[in-house]
Amino acid sequence: MPDQLQTRLFAELNSIRLIDPHTHIDPHAAASTTLADILGYHYYTELIHSAGMPREEIEEPGLDPKEQVRRLVERIEPLRNTFQYGWLLELSRAFFDFPADEDLTVDNWEQLYDAAAAKMAQPDWEQQVLERTKLDAVFLTNQFDDPLEGFDTSRYVPCLRTDDLVFHLGNVEVRQRLERATNTDVHDAASLRAAIGKLFERFVAKGARACAISLPPDFTPEGAPFGRLRSQFQHLAVFVDPVLSVVLRGLEGSDPDEQTRYDDYAKQVSQFVFWTLAEMCAEFKLPFDLMVGVHRGVYRGGVYQGQDLYDSRVSLIQYKDLFNALPQVTFPVSVLASVTNQELASYAWIFPNVVTNGHWWYSHTPSFIERDATARLEAVPQTKQIGYYSDVYKLEFALPKWAMYKRILAKILAERFVIDRGWSEERAVDLGRRVLRGNVERVFGMG
Amino acid sequence: MPDQLQTRLFAELNSIRLIDPHTHIDPHAAASTTLADILGYHYYTELIHSAGMPREEIEEPGLDPKEQVRRLVERIEPLRNTFQYGWLLELSRAFFDFPADEDLTVDNWEQLYDAAAAKMAQPDWEQQVLERTKLDAVFLTNQFDDPLEGFDTSRYVPCLRTDDLVFHLGNVEVRQRLERATNTDVHDAASLRAAIGKLFERFVAKGARACAISLPPDFTPEGAPFGRLRSQFQHLAVFVDPVLSVVLRGLEGSDPDEQTRYDDYAKQVSQFVFWTLAEMCAEFKLPFDLMVGVHRGVYRGGVYQGQDLYDSRVSLIQYKDLFNALPQVTFPVSVLASVTNQELASYAWIFPNVVTNGHWWYSHTPSFIERDATARLEAVPQTKQIGYYSDVYKLEFALPKWAMYKRILAKILAERFVIDRGWSEERAVDLGRRVLRGNVERVFGMG
Amino acid sequence: MPDQLQTRLFAELNSIRLIDPHTHIDPHAAASTTLADILGYHYYTELIHSAGMPREEIEEPGLDPKEQVRRLVERIEPLRNTFQYGWLLELSRAFFDFPADEDLTVDNWEQLYDAAAAKMAQPDWEQQVLERTKLDAVFLTNQFDDPLEGFDTSRYVPCLRTDDLVFHLGNVEVRQRLERATNTDVHDAASLRAAIGKLFERFVAKGARACAISLPPDFTPEGAPFGRLRSQFQHLAVFVDPVLSVVLRGLEGSDPDEQTRYDDYAKQVSQFVFWTLAEMCAEFKLPFDLMVGVHRGVYRGGVYQGQDLYDSRVSLIQYKDLFNALPQVTFPVSVLASVTNQELASYAWIFPNVVTNGHWWYSHTPSFIERDATARLEAVPQTKQIGYYSDVYKLEFALPKWAMYKRILAKILAERFVIDRGWSEERAVDLGRRVLRGNVERVFGMG
Repeated sequence: MPDQLQTRLFAELNSIRLIDPHTHIDPHAAASTTLADILGYHYYTELIHSAGMPREEIEEPGLDPKEQVRRLVERIEPLRNTFQYGWLLELSRAFFDFPADEDLTVDNWEQLYDAAAAKMAQPDWEQQVLERTKLDAVFLTNQFDDPLEGFDTSRYVPCLRTDDLVFHLGNVEVRQRLERATNTDVHDAASLRAAIGKLFERFVAKGARACAISLPPDFTPEGAPFGRLRSQFQHLAVFVDPVLSVVLRGLEGSDPDEQTRYDDYAKQVSQFVFWTLAEMCAEFKLPFDLMVGVHRGVYRGGVYQGQDLYDSRVSLIQYKDLFNALPQVTFPVSVLASVTNQELASYAWIFPNVVTNGHWWYSHTPSFIERDATARLEAVPQTKQIGYYSDVYKLEFALPKWAMYKRILAKILAERFVIDRGWSEERAVDLGRRVLRGNVERVFGMG
Repeated sequence: MPDQLQTRLFAELNSIRLIDPHTHIDPHAAASTTLADILGYHYYTELIHSAGMPREEIEEPGLDPKEQVRRLVERIEPLRNTFQYGWLLELSRAFFDFPADEDLTVDNWEQLYDAAAAKMAQPDWEQQVLERTKLDAVFLTNQFDDPLEGFDTSRYVPCLRTDDLVFHLGNVEVRQRLERATNTDVHDAASLRAAIGKLFERFVAKGARACAISLPPDFTPEGAPFGRLRSQFQHLAVFVDPVLSVVLRGLEGSDPDEQTRYDDYAKQVSQFVFWTLAEMCAEFKLPFDLMVGVHRGVYRGGVYQGQDLYDSRVSLIQYKDLFNALPQVTFPVSVLASVTNQELASYAWIFPNVVTNGHWWYSHTPSFIERDATARLEAVPQTKQIGYYSDVYKLEFALPKWAMYKRILAKILAERFVIDRGWSEERAVDLGRRVLRGNVERVFGMG
Repeated sequence: MPDQLQTRLFAELNSIRLIDPHTHIDPHAAASTTLADILGYHYYTELIHSAGMPREEIEEPGLDPKEQVRRLVERIEPLRNTFQYGWLLELSRAFFDFPADEDLTVDNWEQLYDAAAAKMAQPDWEQQVLERTKLDAVFLTNQFDDPLEGFDTSRYVPCLRTDDLVFHLGNVEVRQRLERATNTDVHDAASLRAAIGKLFERFVAKGARACAISLPPDFTPEGAPFGRLRSQFQHLAVFVDPVLSVVLRGLEGSDPDEQTRYDDYAKQVSQFVFWTLAEMCAEFKLPFDLMVGVHRGVYRGGVYQGQDLYDSRVSLIQYKDLFNALPQVTFPVSVLASVTNQELASYAWIFPNVVTNGHWWYSHTPSFIERDATARLEAVPQTKQIGYYSDVYKLEFALPKWAMYKRILAKILAERFVIDRGWSEERAVDLGRRVLRGNVERVFGMG
């Protein structure tokens, strides 16, 4: 009876208390206040736009939340096959007593809206959601100048997100944010390095557990010259300072040759900042989450957060120098395209400092998760796999997203381990517990 | 009872009347006249050749059809595991009373040959095949100079195939065919554009429902300069005219430098023609079918239509500028390698004008269809998926090919939707109906 | 009852006597002498290192075998989920009476060690393992200067491995080994070609059945100039001689420009040697095993044989010229990344001289084997598929590795052929027999 076996395993897995090692939760507004926060998730707005609703109608400024939900529900029919729509129904049933056999329609949305608003208005709503989802802690995605104040950092764990520092330091606003956040005049390699060091000091003091970055498919951390010169910082500065000063000065005018030269210099600065971050991870003993493969702004007419896509032609061989140069840093790696998952499993099988991390974005769909998690569970040491993170913006989504993963995990454990390999159910659940919770504690030092 | 569920769903799906949105049917000889038309399908000749039969024996000029079938059957044993051989048995059973438990052998082929010939000689044979297959309409693949006359264009729907225009305009024959077909002296950008416009006018007047092209993996439509200059056609001509005149004049001699320069110019002309076609699709409101990823003539010693292969390293990021520039054009996209399917699903999930289209050629095998269709059904809005086209050259193949797809679709709907997600069977069949038929009507305006 | 069907099919497949067409067996020490030979397999050392054990502790020189096993077992817990650990248990149960319900632990390893040592000390141990595994013959991987003496070449079949010749001929040791092995002064194209010819003569005289090579993902055999000039060897030598003389002289000093020029020349020599080998395969009628896609030494701190990884961005289009130029040579092709498997299946479907060959290394895991074998079984002629090779270094591993493959094959035959396509079990077993044994005989001329 494989189905009953799977059900039993799911029940066991579903009883495990969780730490969510990557989200975009705002700790000052972790839960939703209306259904507009739920339907405003980019998964819905981008799919509804893709199915034909003009962006202007979706993102009309100053729109009343209830009207916004009405509009989106009116156009939601084309999404009913999607797993994302499945999350919406599952959370509505779990939290807001939405009937099990109904779709969200123009006839019943208002009732749901009002029921949700009433629940969300309860003073302990956030706590209810956390308890219901069995969430002990939730990792955040903090901008480098986030003050990290006014919330419980043991529940909402800070993580230093560094995309801006690596890819947009030439942007005058970013530089000024960095200077303000660190009280440092950033003008050369030494002062930039010092400023970054101060960020790490502050984040670690506030309980940060990871540094993180998302990377385009054509990014390759270059070991030389920066890698080779790592231990000779004074020497390195001779190369970096002139390049950095050009980038910090910014691009003036629109001469194409200037632009090309500037872009080239900006890339060199990206390399320098990236390596500096990796070295700081070593110094401050923080794992460095690498999220590999996204191209930003591919669809220029898309809704907010619905414009990014990818080129699946990327390889972890691009990270060879990095993984070799910093054996003391743990790199939890996420890949955007499922085709990269075999490489990820192989690199984690060989490199002690590479750990598989969740199922990201366009690979975060049931059939890709099943395929990718299976490949990892059969070939990567069980201590080196972080099974899942939810990537949510609002707490309510953690329940259906984690449930989706736990069902798939129960299926893999049932079919591939208990049936195919003759494992006991207890042992299968132990493996599940490790990838669900134990490795999060281990990798990020949450013990 | 998953098997019975799957059987019930298949029965429902199998009752749906179909429109086949991409074939190579000749409307003047849509059905076969002997079994040689069936066994002459490139799927059989190329596999039999691959298994060891010399091309010369397969393609001997002037060979009697019966002798040709005898020869092929003699060498067909190595193919018995293939799904393509499965089509042959299924259509022979369905149309020619071939026994259910027999293989095609040197002992029974002649009986089948004669039975088929007798059926095919019936005056309403074509109609019988269409009815048995439940085909209401069949899209064609028409060369740009096809007269489109002498057949019912509501049953056999014209589609403008444009590979020759984009990739072989320097070929003097192609240019002359274009000039004759449009009664236009083609010598510069303006006259070329005018000629292409006339093709669209004629095709649309004849009821054409799509423009289509197959593209090599290294083709990237370039937005600039042509894209940027689209609205300033006069300005554009200044660039295009000199390049075009070189290409239209053709290459003389064999100087390698000349060849390189010519090839470069030919590529620029390909870009110009491709963008012009896309713009005409906007003007004439035709979807533009993109079939991405084929390398022609890779195996030079192969049989007719059995020489093409691919490089799976291709990305839809190459089409970014096109998808952004022409939001009013619908692009039904087919990909040749299954590894590109995740990108296709993701691009259709984000871009309103990208639609997934069938399972093409080397990805048109049961296990790839199952995997790729699953990824689409779970993440792409249900209105944006054209489930299947048969790509057949003769009508008789539509039955087993569509049946193969419908069985896989029934399996996915049973396992992933009815069982995993608790859908009703009725709802699952509705989703199936949409990808089988409804979206063909919707995307190609067949309502 | 799919499970019982699968069990019946497995029993039939498991009764077939085997020829293993690719291993790294040392015919002078084919079986193990202690459990250290088993646990010293790179699959265990690299995974244990990846899970945290320092390389120095694993590879301490002069370590006693028993102590080595003790250390490894102490750190083996993180591997218990892996299929590689599964082989260890399966072979321990099959050969050394290890209890079916126990894991290998610090408490029971010594008992297993002693039991194994006792068995391995039996004079006919090698013969017992061969019989138990039903192995009639085992292909070797012989260096070009292997004397090929002192063993039964009908049981241990020589194969000429050529990586050193193609990629390291500039290494003075390799050149000297070649000169000694062929009694030839290698100094130009003609003498190099003559030397290679002598290798083939010797190997073929000793019963060699294949030439083999592993290739990095960026290697592309170049048809021109070498291909075009094949029939004009004198002419070719004019180009090759000066290049070859530079490479054979070796690189002096460390001038970067010199290095670049030398590397470029070395690549040209690789091309020449590779094409010469392929031509010799034609002349001596040997299949040329191509193992496509490995990058050597990616993880520099890894254990012995645990440093290699890959870049999955490789295409068989790179081998187009080779496959076209030498239709008389059979190329059994293995690919390192599963993503390349679809291309492999397609190229074998089209090219008569391309044969699919086993499941290599990082694609040699249950879920990738299942996926890749399915794609081949449904689309490649059944005569053109070599199902499996074990790649083992010690005979004892052949049993669990072949068993893993046979279970997967039984599953595919049960689900995809008997159930989905209505095949008889007998017919399914016939297909299994062909890919397990018949095609090895056919392709390598073992009949």
